[in-house]
Amino acid sequence: MASPVNPPRGMRDFLPADKARREHALSVIRRVYTQHGFDEVETPMVEDSARLHSGLGGDNEKLAFGILRRGLGDADFAKAAEEGSAESLTDLGLRFDLTVPLARFYATHRAELPGVFRSIQVGPVWRAERPQKGRYRQFVQADIDIIGEPSQLAEIELITATSATLAELGLRDCVIRINDRRILFGLLEHCGFPADLHDSALISIDKLDKIGTAGVVAELAERSPAAAAVLESILITIEPHVVAGGVPLSEQGIRSLLPAGMDPVAVDELVALGAALVALPDGVELRFDPTLVRGMGYYTGTIFEIAHPESGSSVGGGGRYDGMIGRFLGQDVPAAGFSIGFERIVDLVDLTGGGAADAVALVYDRDFVPATLVSMKAELIAAGSRVRVEKRAKNLKLQLERLAEAGFTRFAFVSAATSSVSALELKPLT
Amino acid sequence: MASPVNPPRGMRDFLPADKARREHALSVIRRVYTQHGFDEVETPMVEDSARLHSGLGGDNEKLAFGILRRGLGDADFAKAAEEGSAESLTDLGLRFDLTVPLARFYATHRAELPGVFRSIQVGPVWRAERPQKGRYRQFVQADIDIIGEPSQLAEIELITATSATLAELGLRDCVIRINDRRILFGLLEHCGFPADLHDSALISIDKLDKIGTAGVVAELAERSPAAAAVLESILITIEPHVVAGGVPLSEQGIRSLLPAGMDPVAVDELVALGAALVALPDGVELRFDPTLVRGMGYYTGTIFEIAHPESGSSVGGGGRYDGMIGRFLGQDVPAAGFSIGFERIVDLVDLTGGGAADAVALVYDRDFVPATLVSMKAELIAAGSRVRVEKRAKNLKLQLERLAEAGFTRFAFVSAATSSVSALELKPLT
Repeated sequence: MASPVNPPRGMRDFLPADKARREHALSVIRRVYTQHGFDEVETPMVEDSARLHSGLGGDNEKLAFGILRRGLGDADFAKAAEEGSAESLTDLGLRFDLTVPLARFYATHRAELPGVFRSIQVGPVWRAERPQKGRYRQFVQADIDIIGEPSQLAEIELITATSATLAELGLRDCVIRINDRRILFGLLEHCGFPADLHDSALISIDKLDKIGTAGVVAELAERSPAAAAVLESILITIEPHVVAGGVPLSEQGIRSLLPAGMDPVAVDELVALGAALVALPDGVELRFDPTLVRGMGYYTGTIFEIAHPESGSSVGGGGRYDGMIGRFLGQDVPAAGFSIGFERIVDLVDLTGGGAADAVALVYDRDFVPATLVSMKAELIAAGSRVRVEKRAKNLKLQLERLAEAGFTRFAFVSAATSSVSALELKPLT
Repeated sequence: MASPVNPPRGMRDFLPADKARREHALSVIRRVYTQHGFDEVETPMVEDSARLHSGLGGDNEKLAFGILRRGLGDADFAKAAEEGSAESLTDLGLRFDLTVPLARFYATHRAELPGVFRSIQVGPVWRAERPQKGRYRQFVQADIDIIGEPSQLAEIELITATSATLAELGLRDCVIRINDRRILFGLLEHCGFPADLHDSALISIDKLDKIGTAGVVAELAERSPAAAAVLESILITIEPHVVAGGVPLSEQGIRSLLPAGMDPVAVDELVALGAALVALPDGVELRFDPTLVRGMGYYTGTIFEIAHPESGSSVGGGGRYDGMIGRFLGQDVPAAGFSIGFERIVDLVDLTGGGAADAVALVYDRDFVPATLVSMKAELIAAGSRVRVEKRAKNLKLQLERLAEAGFTRFAFVSAATSSVSALELKPLT
């Protein structure tokens, strides 16, 4: 029978083993990003509705949970009915990403922050999505951003730090696919697509790995047949490489997939980026994929996405988004960011080495002396052990199995006769 | 001029120095409680409204933020207007404490948890309070609870583990005042207060340190003059001890403040508790205060509260609350908990020893070579340093001062001529 009491729909409880895995992964992420010169900040999990619905959040704005204003009265309900909308009933909302709050944070605190600010943000966000496998209404994001750095050094540091984090988490075989929005738009111009078709053309190109060249061209041929024909000639060459996950991010790799004469600045920068990314750990590979789009419309330059063989979808991504972070300040500020898909990563994490300390269970009989038990526990903790006291259960075998499952490595019985730690007969727990 | 962009009213941003302090304190809390045999769990920050408003949350239920239902229409607004309440517009709410979610969690997962379950919960809660100094609408709570242990071992472990945590956080001079709700009710019966006056009598007694014996008696004399007179004779003796923070939690101390013949079970248990609490660190003192009440009505036995000389109000508290955790299960389950007032504690934390690693700033000139800079950074990180790269600012003195403030200990200039870590001239910062 299903339990009659559950967490809210689309949200999850974490039991001790899961929670330990999550906290271990979070501590690795915090530690490595901090070593790489990033600083953690925190904003409230709630923001003013006006900020959440300012156009920076794209389609996610529609998924924001609104919070009821306090002290509502009949006039408020009447107004909502008249407007046919609950908008006036809410003044706060749960954040749906960490980027809109970062833009607000930067506008609030710019004077207190360094000229180039490297932020770490880790925390939950909420989206009112239809719950389904692997999609949750509350989930954790882990973002790093570099604000105020116009040069490619931002991308280099973001990709280097994130690669190091993936390696420290024990993830092998990560591929970071890289592209540049300017290369995408250059390609569309090269083909002759009119500007008003660029967005829908990108949506189609993004699906190349699923629907193939013929599918992409079919979606665009009706509205712009000549441009679609040029695109087809290019995609036919690219498609096998895209299916294979891109080509190496080298000068030769990059130029081999692009028609001559494309935006030379963006191409040269991508070549320089590949050359500068020298400090990557083993197990992280960089690939160029000229059809990588990334959904968010706010990207302006380099874009990147992490693929891992054990995950069907990307496990992280980011890029340059100049012009967005400064929106609440009313001025342009260069910025680039990288977000780890925490919920997808955490299942792939290698826990070896986490919680390695000695863990002792003191199993006491009915006649135990509380003060003695507690002082033995304190002495073992002082010596570096994790200690749990448990009353001896009727089913001792099951009790010991559960202790072993919970990570305890040794146990001893405690009776009225056990007067000190030296009197404990500690035995291994499988 | 005040910044025009702010976090929501009553909520806070945390800049890097504050956030580092908070994360340090949280990591100590998690580590010490884990050593003491507690396991961390997590529940969603949102719960179904029906759970939040089930009567377990006391007055805090009124302060719950409600979340708007999705897809509301005119009929819903009309219904709210007719009912004169927004209740039907909301199906979820932000949690206002960690105890109601724990009761819900326990009901959901009981079969997967050990017979005696020691939980750690750390996370934000929200209350729609009028914002004022030291009161926030989002704040962090850190709770431990022991569910399923009817004996005093629960109180012993809670107080021992929390004392160890306070000591590891560097807090000295903590006093834990202890009482038992049964002693309070025994006192009221001894005086002859009718049962329907017990709650208001407790509210008055709770104010003894502020309004004195005369004030407490004045509040109660009109409704129950004879009982108030008996109470007066007791409080006059107790008052000087309460003002001094209670008496030692020893048999002599406890019995000295109570009239003869009071609930002997509760008194004996309190004496036994004092005798069993032997493994406390230096700097934590236990005191008996027979006027300690604790606000929440759900407590059934031992209650405790932490005082610290640098904080005007308590920095933590808890007690036994049998009968509440099992409410969603429909059965009685013994339980006791201890909550650290994280927002008050974090300002008292000693950060010495946190972030002790070497921290290096690489200050680069315009002609730097990205690949070289990045590989030097990687090499320093691999050797154990935290590393930040920064472009040389016009005001170098200010730049170096800010780096020192941010915890960096050494710096070196990097130019086109700097080809490796061995060529760096590292100098101390301040």
